Amino acid sequence: MSLADSHPRQDGPGRGRPRSEAVERSIMEGVLKLLEEGVPLAELSIERIARTAGVGKATIYRRWSGKEALFVDVVRAAEPPDPELPGTSVRDDLVALMEQLRRRGLMTRSPVLLHNVIAQMKSSPKIWDAYHANVVEPRRRKQHAILRRAQENGELRTDIDVDVMNDMIFGPMLVRAVMRPDADLPEGLAEQMVDAVLEGLRPVSSRTP
Amino acid sequence: MSLADSHPRQDGPGRGRPRSEAVERSIMEGVLKLLEEGVPLAELSIERIARTAGVGKATIYRRWSGKEALFVDVVRAAEPPDPELPGTSVRDDLVALMEQLRRRGLMTRSPVLLHNVIAQMKSSPKIWDAYHANVVEPRRRKQHAILRRAQENGELRTDIDVDVMNDMIFGPMLVRAVMRPDADLPEGLAEQMVDAVLEGLRPVSSRTP
Repeated sequence: MSLADSHPRQDGPGRGRPRSEAVERSIMEGVLKLLEEGVPLAELSIERIARTAGVGKATIYRRWSGKEALFVDVVRAAEPPDPELPGTSVRDDLVALMEQLRRRGLMTRSPVLLHNVIAQMKSSPKIWDAYHANVVEPRRRKQHAILRRAQENGELRTDIDVDVMNDMIFGPMLVRAVMRPDADLPEGLAEQMVDAVLEGLRPVSSRTP
Repeated sequence: MSLADSHPRQDGPGRGRPRSEAVERSIMEGVLKLLEEGVPLAELSIERIARTAGVGKATIYRRWSGKEALFVDVVRAAEPPDPELPGTSVRDDLVALMEQLRRRGLMTRSPVLLHNVIAQMKSSPKIWDAYHANVVEPRRRKQHAILRRAQENGELRTDIDVDVMNDMIFGPMLVRAVMRPDADLPEGLAEQMVDAVLEGLRPVSSRTP
């Protein structure tokens, strides 16, 4: 008998209501618990997750299409949330996004959760693809939109491809956060990187000095 | 893929002599042949490599400490060679290094060798560590030396850590070459990235306009 099944849904798809949220959270926490216990991803069956969370398999399948989708949600919930963008300037928006990336990097440095989770994720092409499609690509589209708008309103030069510009801005932090686990990620790094790279990405007329 | 333009190490007794070079090349080509045939790294024993190359196991062990060291040399030989640095300016040296990275990225895009080799390498922490210690770290030290010298002679600002600067310069190309297999790597990208990022990394007094 699952917890959710004993409380019939009252309306709609059930998402967003406190009861449903609690069930979702306990399922995702079940996944985290198993991962923290060192259970490899390959052995994380929906059945085992259901048992750990104290729900029925059907309760999980009502919310996620399968292990991949559930796992991607677990990772997304464990990562720093997408920041509110100040919207005051392209500089401030970029700093906010870079700061999120820096914090995510710091989280993967702690010898615990996110590090193992991401390593496991990389070992499964199917989950890695789902993570990319559902987390990485939407972030990237948001970044592109910010850059395109800044090109339109004259904050950024227009002779560099938006996708190239995107890597010029976020690539350095991404490399330090993801590829170089020994690299420092000090407070203030997001601001320093954004300010320096923007010097070369602004229209010539608005550069320092 | 052939290793015809490879550059054998010069650091051991007997290295660099024609006879020894030919043997080394046939051994390394043996490894490539097996990899191209789809033999997984885990099944690539020294014995099998020796058989493929038509040499004795002792011949291999005289040149390499083991499978890891041999494999790292195979990858290094398959990658674009380290460029001659023009030495005319930090800009020109950086463009040369970025261009190498761009070409390496293009090579991993071809559906053949380097792509599989690098994927295999990543799946073996021991070989990945050896590759980092013997290929990636020396490159990084060379890059740092270039940047430090440019800071000393006034070509680069001194208030940004050399290691951070290094990621600001090489990170964008690295991300495109290694993490984003679908990203374009057009001719001229190295120059464009270096010129734009240097605008923010030069001392204020020497910036454009």
